[in-house]
Amino acid sequence: MTKIDVGSELIYEVRRSTVFLFKIAVGQTNHQRIEQETYTFDPMQNVEDCVVGLDGNRLQRVVVDPCTLKIQYNATVELTPDIEMQLDVQESNIAQVPSDVLTYLNPSRYCESDLLGRFAFEEFGQVPRGFQRVQAICDWVNTHLDYTPGSTTSTTTAADVLLQRTGVCRDYAHLAISLCRGLGIPARYVSGYAVDLQPPDFHGFMEAFLDGNWYLFDPTKLAETKGLVRIATGRDAADVAFATLTGDAVLKSSTVWATAGSINDANQGNSAVSTA
Amino acid sequence: MTKIDVGSELIYEVRRSTVFLFKIAVGQTNHQRIEQETYTFDPMQNVEDCVVGLDGNRLQRVVVDPCTLKIQYNATVELTPDIEMQLDVQESNIAQVPSDVLTYLNPSRYCESDLLGRFAFEEFGQVPRGFQRVQAICDWVNTHLDYTPGSTTSTTTAADVLLQRTGVCRDYAHLAISLCRGLGIPARYVSGYAVDLQPPDFHGFMEAFLDGNWYLFDPTKLAETKGLVRIATGRDAADVAFATLTGDAVLKSSTVWATAGSINDANQGNSAVSTA
Amino acid sequence: MTKIDVGSELIYEVRRSTVFLFKIAVGQTNHQRIEQETYTFDPMQNVEDCVVGLDGNRLQRVVVDPCTLKIQYNATVELTPDIEMQLDVQESNIAQVPSDVLTYLNPSRYCESDLLGRFAFEEFGQVPRGFQRVQAICDWVNTHLDYTPGSTTSTTTAADVLLQRTGVCRDYAHLAISLCRGLGIPARYVSGYAVDLQPPDFHGFMEAFLDGNWYLFDPTKLAETKGLVRIATGRDAADVAFATLTGDAVLKSSTVWATAGSINDANQGNSAVSTA
Amino acid sequence: MTKIDVGSELIYEVRRSTVFLFKIAVGQTNHQRIEQETYTFDPMQNVEDCVVGLDGNRLQRVVVDPCTLKIQYNATVELTPDIEMQLDVQESNIAQVPSDVLTYLNPSRYCESDLLGRFAFEEFGQVPRGFQRVQAICDWVNTHLDYTPGSTTSTTTAADVLLQRTGVCRDYAHLAISLCRGLGIPARYVSGYAVDLQPPDFHGFMEAFLDGNWYLFDPTKLAETKGLVRIATGRDAADVAFATLTGDAVLKSSTVWATAGSINDANQGNSAVSTA
Repeated sequence: MTKIDVGSELIYEVRRSTVFLFKIAVGQTNHQRIEQETYTFDPMQNVEDCVVGLDGNRLQRVVVDPCTLKIQYNATVELTPDIEMQLDVQESNIAQVPSDVLTYLNPSRYCESDLLGRFAFEEFGQVPRGFQRVQAICDWVNTHLDYTPGSTTSTTTAADVLLQRTGVCRDYAHLAISLCRGLGIPARYVSGYAVDLQPPDFHGFMEAFLDGNWYLFDPTKLAETKGLVRIATGRDAADVAFATLTGDAVLKSSTVWATAGSINDANQGNSAVSTA
Repeated sequence: MTKIDVGSELIYEVRRSTVFLFKIAVGQTNHQRIEQETYTFDPMQNVEDCVVGLDGNRLQRVVVDPCTLKIQYNATVELTPDIEMQLDVQESNIAQVPSDVLTYLNPSRYCESDLLGRFAFEEFGQVPRGFQRVQAICDWVNTHLDYTPGSTTSTTTAADVLLQRTGVCRDYAHLAISLCRGLGIPARYVSGYAVDLQPPDFHGFMEAFLDGNWYLFDPTKLAETKGLVRIATGRDAADVAFATLTGDAVLKSSTVWATAGSINDANQGNSAVSTA
Repeated sequence: MTKIDVGSELIYEVRRSTVFLFKIAVGQTNHQRIEQETYTFDPMQNVEDCVVGLDGNRLQRVVVDPCTLKIQYNATVELTPDIEMQLDVQESNIAQVPSDVLTYLNPSRYCESDLLGRFAFEEFGQVPRGFQRVQAICDWVNTHLDYTPGSTTSTTTAADVLLQRTGVCRDYAHLAISLCRGLGIPARYVSGYAVDLQPPDFHGFMEAFLDGNWYLFDPTKLAETKGLVRIATGRDAADVAFATLTGDAVLKSSTVWATAGSINDANQGNSAVSTA
Repeated sequence: MTKIDVGSELIYEVRRSTVFLFKIAVGQTNHQRIEQETYTFDPMQNVEDCVVGLDGNRLQRVVVDPCTLKIQYNATVELTPDIEMQLDVQESNIAQVPSDVLTYLNPSRYCESDLLGRFAFEEFGQVPRGFQRVQAICDWVNTHLDYTPGSTTSTTTAADVLLQRTGVCRDYAHLAISLCRGLGIPARYVSGYAVDLQPPDFHGFMEAFLDGNWYLFDPTKLAETKGLVRIATGRDAADVAFATLTGDAVLKSSTVWATAGSINDANQGNSAVSTA
């Protein structure tokens, strides 16, 4: 059991009435308990708290009049160790995959598994099935891509990345997800906070469904999976943008942090902090 | 209230043990009541009936050993007229869209609304908002595309179609959906049966979310919306394939029919029938 | 007859032995006479001067050892007015197009005229043929794109631009060229200097082949065609990059200028100058 | 020295006056001498014989009124063995590549070497340079693609093929060309006839420029390079289509043949013949 302090601060210049959809609050799951949480809007706003979709993602919707808007989110989260990672975990036969998981075999906006299936089979068809095959995919992605901020955009897809061989965390995750789905392994995108991520920022990683459970992988290897705190889950980055806005507002600054705390040292003074 | 007889017959040559996921049975919704239904597999199979996803799509999963497999589906469906189509139906403000509908604003595999937003605004930004704007989009798609069987494949996207200007029903729907989402109007894909469709086949159309309700549109104008019987709903065609299979099987024939019946004439002898 | 002073200065940090191919010197054509020209490399280099391709583009090849390399190019060019632009100039029948011009009907890397032909016919099929049709294409491109530096990259194509509706000079030219070719009008890319371009930079524009001659068009409308001084001609930007390098060197600064001079005022003190 | 009989017969239904550009006659090069040649149009036509481009491609232009047009081409060609293939042939340093060859380093419509450069370096950067590196590229293409007629279209590019891993001769050539260019090796597309090709058809292959000469490669390995008879050379398939037509005509049948003849047996009775 680990205790982790996470948080983020976003400052927007809102120029006319704007509808914001935020996904920055951590999720409540079997493996992740929110011990305490504060979520403040300055100036104060009327915030609608929603739980959406099959995966129960949290979403805050707020309509903001022109102002300088500062959002601050803080949480202390208790992570129960996930099922122990073991190389002998098997892939689920598609005949046994729970029906609600089947949707994570479909191609999605940034994960064109329908295009990459042949490549996946050629490269990973002979790798022993199960946890180690997903691990082999993540290793391959990690080895063959260069982590290059600025080399991709918000519309870059897994197929683009497979060709150009550069990207950032979301691109690594998209490619790994696509290769899994191409092999018949359900896979999904997870946004979150990551302890000791350098530079600190929101992170994107993935989960593969194996033998009845979802297993976390970070193809960038920039963070340890035991330090990953989930915000939201989706088919790909299209579903879990930290903020979606309709109107006219500009992000002026963004600060994100995540520190492994302890019972005696819950203060976040030592956390890694970025300002983008 | 209309009564419609629909059905389909699929014949597969199954060469080795194959897992099939079928989406050919009609959905049960507020506007669509299944009066009677038969669903037969020959040879008989152990069929798992699932209801999946937020939209409650029905899905039949079956593992089939080598054989010639014949699936026949028949249903009589009672359609309650949808909310009357009216040009003065308004668009929902994004601040009011129910949270579970928000997902239908996201781009998806075949509907790259993130790429087509500027085009959508340029072409439809000045059209009065609401039902008539969606109608204008469907009219535009209908006018600017040529319905050309064989001109697209299962991986063709809305952006491809906007450039090449040809496609079939799924392509028409994908483009209309993308343009709606690009304008902030939630939109989704619907697969179904369509009365008097020529040539008879499974059909693909769309729904837009306006003023609190989903409204049906068929951008191909090949069928009247009052003769559309829903099978499944999804983000795009990736979610509602009539059959997905893992193993080795070949579709040998496919026959689809849909006829407006009446209380006294429920026999399907007059139905349009295709054999592909 | 106009006299124009043009020039550019490029500074590179060369980190290891690098082969440069430069295309920054103006071309010698029927309509463009080089009155004087200086081309200096500091430190001095062994420069190979080539004339390449069907269009007689000039190219300087030089192998540079590690250093800070400064290239300065200056020329005074006398432009003889091109054939007078007239709306009644006709398109050449493909049966009469000179055989060496036929190549400019083929699709090329950034001009996928094979993809955009249907769009071109739909949008411009009814426009009276000839000069005014090319003008209509350029007007359309100018109206429907937003000139947005940074919105495209060196691999952006005409099809991308037609969808996203933003770009810079090369994107405008690529789209106009593609639409011309799609209609059977030979068209090619021209790089050059442009009087009074704001901000000053190398410019990209296009030529269409009509009634036996090449006619200049600038779809960006950022410069007058009578102030366009040609450097090189090609199928698209792939053929006329101002510098191509193999090795390891970084462009530290680039300054470009072009001023309409006069017999009494050949000094370039008033020229618009940019430093990028 | 080998003597080869090649030929083709094309039959078109011409519905209205149509301009044809044919590239089916073999080229005259240092390594390829046309011993005899017949080229007939039935009904007879006024044929314009052109030699176009840097590579001296032959092109026949003809304007045909409505009719059933039958074109028959026959040639006996004497091939002088190309420079002996040797694994120790070196790559040309870009500083020494003749200036007119430089154009074959540029990306082109179906060969996006600008997108595939990183992949090329990653996969072939460590392979010893020279003939054997091009051979390694062709071997890789041959091993990793499935030759699947119908799996690609006339607009499929090298990047598409690298992802989908299927294609036909033109796709194999496009991918190999792109990878060569990505590594700085000039490469171009060659269309031609191929002895013993099964099924008989026009063939597409490639040339790489090494140590001052162009070397032939057939990445499909469907024909021996010593049995390849050149028709035309270009950047990619866009430049060498066997027929381009403007008007309204439909290809009704196409027959292609190529046989290694001998002094005593110049008849073509044993040639492989296809009718498509």
